[in-house]
Amino acid sequence: MAGSTFGTVFRIMTWGESHGAGVGVTIDGCPAGLSLCEQDIKRYLDRRKPGQSKFTTARQEGDEVELLSGVFDEKTTGTPIALMVRNMDQRSRDYTAIMDVYRPGHGDYCFDAKYGFRDYRGGGRSSGRETIGRVAAGAVACKFLSSYGITVDAYTKSIGEIEISPERFDLAKRDENKLYMPDDIAAEKAAAYLEQLMEEKDSAGGVVECVIRGLPAGVGEPVFDKLDACLAKAVMSIGAVKGFEIGDGFEAAKSRGSVNNDEFYIDPEGKVRKRTNHSGGILGGISDGSDVIFRAAFKPTPSIARPQQTVNRAGENVEIIVKGRHDPVVVPRAVVVVEAMAALAIADLLLTGRSARADGAALVL
Amino acid sequence: MAGSTFGTVFRIMTWGESHGAGVGVTIDGCPAGLSLCEQDIKRYLDRRKPGQSKFTTARQEGDEVELLSGVFDEKTTGTPIALMVRNMDQRSRDYTAIMDVYRPGHGDYCFDAKYGFRDYRGGGRSSGRETIGRVAAGAVACKFLSSYGITVDAYTKSIGEIEISPERFDLAKRDENKLYMPDDIAAEKAAAYLEQLMEEKDSAGGVVECVIRGLPAGVGEPVFDKLDACLAKAVMSIGAVKGFEIGDGFEAAKSRGSVNNDEFYIDPEGKVRKRTNHSGGILGGISDGSDVIFRAAFKPTPSIARPQQTVNRAGENVEIIVKGRHDPVVVPRAVVVVEAMAALAIADLLLTGRSARADGAALVL
Amino acid sequence: MAGSTFGTVFRIMTWGESHGAGVGVTIDGCPAGLSLCEQDIKRYLDRRKPGQSKFTTARQEGDEVELLSGVFDEKTTGTPIALMVRNMDQRSRDYTAIMDVYRPGHGDYCFDAKYGFRDYRGGGRSSGRETIGRVAAGAVACKFLSSYGITVDAYTKSIGEIEISPERFDLAKRDENKLYMPDDIAAEKAAAYLEQLMEEKDSAGGVVECVIRGLPAGVGEPVFDKLDACLAKAVMSIGAVKGFEIGDGFEAAKSRGSVNNDEFYIDPEGKVRKRTNHSGGILGGISDGSDVIFRAAFKPTPSIARPQQTVNRAGENVEIIVKGRHDPVVVPRAVVVVEAMAALAIADLLLTGRSARADGAALVL
Amino acid sequence: MAGSTFGTVFRIMTWGESHGAGVGVTIDGCPAGLSLCEQDIKRYLDRRKPGQSKFTTARQEGDEVELLSGVFDEKTTGTPIALMVRNMDQRSRDYTAIMDVYRPGHGDYCFDAKYGFRDYRGGGRSSGRETIGRVAAGAVACKFLSSYGITVDAYTKSIGEIEISPERFDLAKRDENKLYMPDDIAAEKAAAYLEQLMEEKDSAGGVVECVIRGLPAGVGEPVFDKLDACLAKAVMSIGAVKGFEIGDGFEAAKSRGSVNNDEFYIDPEGKVRKRTNHSGGILGGISDGSDVIFRAAFKPTPSIARPQQTVNRAGENVEIIVKGRHDPVVVPRAVVVVEAMAALAIADLLLTGRSARADGAALVL
Repeated sequence: MAGSTFGTVFRIMTWGESHGAGVGVTIDGCPAGLSLCEQDIKRYLDRRKPGQSKFTTARQEGDEVELLSGVFDEKTTGTPIALMVRNMDQRSRDYTAIMDVYRPGHGDYCFDAKYGFRDYRGGGRSSGRETIGRVAAGAVACKFLSSYGITVDAYTKSIGEIEISPERFDLAKRDENKLYMPDDIAAEKAAAYLEQLMEEKDSAGGVVECVIRGLPAGVGEPVFDKLDACLAKAVMSIGAVKGFEIGDGFEAAKSRGSVNNDEFYIDPEGKVRKRTNHSGGILGGISDGSDVIFRAAFKPTPSIARPQQTVNRAGENVEIIVKGRHDPVVVPRAVVVVEAMAALAIADLLLTGRSARADGAALVL
Repeated sequence: MAGSTFGTVFRIMTWGESHGAGVGVTIDGCPAGLSLCEQDIKRYLDRRKPGQSKFTTARQEGDEVELLSGVFDEKTTGTPIALMVRNMDQRSRDYTAIMDVYRPGHGDYCFDAKYGFRDYRGGGRSSGRETIGRVAAGAVACKFLSSYGITVDAYTKSIGEIEISPERFDLAKRDENKLYMPDDIAAEKAAAYLEQLMEEKDSAGGVVECVIRGLPAGVGEPVFDKLDACLAKAVMSIGAVKGFEIGDGFEAAKSRGSVNNDEFYIDPEGKVRKRTNHSGGILGGISDGSDVIFRAAFKPTPSIARPQQTVNRAGENVEIIVKGRHDPVVVPRAVVVVEAMAALAIADLLLTGRSARADGAALVL
Repeated sequence: MAGSTFGTVFRIMTWGESHGAGVGVTIDGCPAGLSLCEQDIKRYLDRRKPGQSKFTTARQEGDEVELLSGVFDEKTTGTPIALMVRNMDQRSRDYTAIMDVYRPGHGDYCFDAKYGFRDYRGGGRSSGRETIGRVAAGAVACKFLSSYGITVDAYTKSIGEIEISPERFDLAKRDENKLYMPDDIAAEKAAAYLEQLMEEKDSAGGVVECVIRGLPAGVGEPVFDKLDACLAKAVMSIGAVKGFEIGDGFEAAKSRGSVNNDEFYIDPEGKVRKRTNHSGGILGGISDGSDVIFRAAFKPTPSIARPQQTVNRAGENVEIIVKGRHDPVVVPRAVVVVEAMAALAIADLLLTGRSARADGAALVL
Repeated sequence: MAGSTFGTVFRIMTWGESHGAGVGVTIDGCPAGLSLCEQDIKRYLDRRKPGQSKFTTARQEGDEVELLSGVFDEKTTGTPIALMVRNMDQRSRDYTAIMDVYRPGHGDYCFDAKYGFRDYRGGGRSSGRETIGRVAAGAVACKFLSSYGITVDAYTKSIGEIEISPERFDLAKRDENKLYMPDDIAAEKAAAYLEQLMEEKDSAGGVVECVIRGLPAGVGEPVFDKLDACLAKAVMSIGAVKGFEIGDGFEAAKSRGSVNNDEFYIDPEGKVRKRTNHSGGILGGISDGSDVIFRAAFKPTPSIARPQQTVNRAGENVEIIVKGRHDPVVVPRAVVVVEAMAALAIADLLLTGRSARADGAALVL
């Protein structure tokens, strides 16, 4: 299995290289009767598009999505939904300089070791352009979740050492700055930091945080397909992600049971609630009805314009300078990718969960 | 899908509740011709056994494993390997006190929300006893990996705020203390901390670190089945794990590209090596030939002997005191579970990788 | 993947060899809340048991099934259901005669070619005893289907050239003769034919027919997971089955569209009905609400007491006489195996179908 | 799961409706290093193209295939291969007549029952055009198999009652007549029969036979993923197939063990051979090294120009005359679809089989 398939019931298969004909995704398992149009998908793709600011590559991608199948009279029919974005801007560059050299921090060497050769033009399947299929499919998953009243919102929590302040947090501000930080002061500081890095021909990492609201209790399977495990796989499969944590995450490891346990209570409407949410909305691998909160750590963009030491296919030590315009940080454009992967994981588990009870009572709208 | 299946080629299915007849696992997809006996499995199970020290529950589990199928003349035959451990020590306790109450920090409420009811005797499938199947299957995976020269070693990195020191790190010392810390001074401090917590009827969390040595470059699939993504799912599926990171993990988010990129060089034997290992042995989702290093954050044991506020099935606010002897920290016994899950994920990807090349050249011994 | 897993949502994994410790099956994905006890399973296992008549091997299998997990207070809990039958009657026979010889009509040679060696004691996984896991899991699937009002009934349609008569067909008579033929005159003739074959040290094949009643329209997925395709795989996976057909099957290939098309009409209760059922209850791969009818062709038992020419592992031509008592026909005991496999396939598709509509309206009780 | 995914290691996902933008397929899991170009695929698609003779619909499909990804420098890269054929000839017909009526012999009613509505334009996913994705992917599978020296050849064995003669059988003649019959006299008779049916506004069924040569012993998994079971599912998933048999198939049910068993012998080169091939090249679910032979029964084309009785969505009895030009028999164009599905099933099992032995010795070129 080449690994380009995700999900069991709501299953997607992505395809395409940065310098081929295009990129795309097919969704096999989107339920019938959901309203869907190209605009639903375009809205998500626009958020990952390059060229939005000085911090993202100027490459003009177009990203005009074609909805090729699975929708009739603006409703999904239950059959596969194929989505495609043609590649533009494929200037026939000269790749001679990098075709035999392994870029540090990239998968070049690993692809060669695995397959015996690689598509060296722009990274092939390890290109950031691969995320278009994820976001397009994720947009459909979000549409499905919204019919349950479930929302998925991610944002930039930090860039380098600069973190948003809990006091100033305002999700509405997220889309007002090109770094997708819900705190305008942090966003300004981060912009200044990135400008400095660009001058130094360097790059930054950062953290994306994601909140899922409206998820009913009972989503996720015990044992191996726990909701947190599935979210972890979904998010860790995004290139450049090096860490994942849910709720208090690594901080929980330093805490105590008496502090970390979230006490339950009955709210005035008679519903079961938790006084705190250290668990991040998941207990025993199953959603507990409170907000699901997780974070993903992104490493700094490996493509930097400085000379670096490396090796080539001939087994020689060489120096490399990675040319071209590269984002000094991938985090802002990755925010929507995190949302997409979270939505895909949850849509799949929500549908899986329809089989939990013999009488089919659970998790049906 | 009830979620008790893990892996695609090297696939396991676990079963069993803490208070049923037993627990077990079947492996469908272990290759033929591997030497295997019950002792290979017992060696791993012994490390997760309770009753090893004052920090683990005194429950006598027995854990005598039966190898029921798939092995003939001490070699695997390629057919399913069934392993079972009978439950002992099933004192018919009175569960009336907890059958209708949701324990804070446990999945009780979520199971009820999902299935309409739950097996309240000892937690059912969310019991720690569920990990026996993981460890038994993981022992087989480790045996398979060892035929490739691959080793998987986990240890306790921290308990609460007490962390092992890189200077004193000595893997050989890991098995000399019951906390599985490869640093005897840290182990002593942690023991004192745990004793204090036990007096306070409280519990601790901690971090497990795992190192995989000998893994050749080329293991892991691009896009969704990246090696790090599969490890993340495997490890996050262990109860109580709240975070996962690979290589520098969350620290990488604060770093710079010029620092975080691992430069390649050719070693005296002509092999491709990296000067640093910030990546934790994985680039582009594929192993790069250096050690794979990851960490898992465990939350504090939720079962504590203090009174806690919670609710019952009738929708009333109630107080609960969780009775019985519980480990004040799950980390020491979880060390071998982490190894098991890592080995299962890698065995599966190693076998998957045999299909990477048309001529079958890759990843065959 | 060693191939011992069946189903996606209602998924089973079987294990065990004829001469190992036992055989068993685990079901991962049986919905919660279904009434289930050991007697439900025993009732099905009794029908495949040997020793029922002179036409079945005298081997005493016992077949006492143990229900090890997944059931609490006589209800399924949604967690894996493990079932096991210990092997009895494992007389330590001398296998020297066959360990290096490939029996004609058996998989001995193929297993050796695949794995490099085989468990030669009684056929290993290709033993008829392997079907115990299928029948045990199938009994659970039947229990689930019965909660929808769906019944699955198979019977012997023919043995050799002797076929039941449509005029005399009476399902109630099926269990009155040990050949499970719903026509007592055909059963008598078949018994006489089998006695003659036994004298001649020969064996017979036959056809099993199966009828599924009460299946609502809409079960089965378009394209690859058509209901008929899934039934075909389920049934063709039973050892000795060489053909599968649905509705008019191979006869349909000789028919005309004007004859073969089943016309629809509205019955007095306003329901959509078909005047004929050439389709066997499936159109476009999806159930059409009428009875599903299919047939499976079984080859003659390959183990016969006559001398046969064959080869051994050393590459020599040799003569073999397969010793031991063998059923002169597998069909009667296979009837319940066919029911089991059909039930497993349908239970899986019924649950899969719960995801067909965004609002979850379909196929929920 | 919507059922448009086939295969585990060599996995495909098809998409597209007859009256949408196009149809296509993505292959996730084709090994790297295989020579592949558009012409390899076009050669197969040309054989299923309509408009080849008076017996196939005149619809001009174009079927110009685009190879969108996964190939670099005319070699597969191991990443997903996306293939697409745009729909042409989408005359905006008036579908008012059939949008609310259920055509006899078609899946219209079943789709409505399942999804709550359907894409009534030309049958949606149950259109014959859906097979383009199968054939395109099958062409890639055939290319892969040919690197092992394995060939897959299907042909028309019978149309209605007219069957090819074993004496006149000549595979070279298959492509000389538009009915793909390897017997020119039978082809002439069948052509005359079809002309008569067309005059009578009726249609015929038929049987396709397929022979796989060069398959080494050892392909197929024991128990559920037997080679014959996987072939059965693959072939029964083709629309209009009502029966499948391997080797002697249903005839075997009437035979005797002493006749049906294929005796082994050592050929002059020291290889294991069989004197007969009643088994059709498969024993115990695993290939035995001889030719694999199977047959598929196709029902008569359900679309006929005669008036037929049926019902509409409003629950009324109505008469329908299915308009448009339809093939009087689907068999000739289905021949290549059968080859495609067989190749896909075998490629998948061949790759799966690389995990059969711990040392990876088996089934590697």
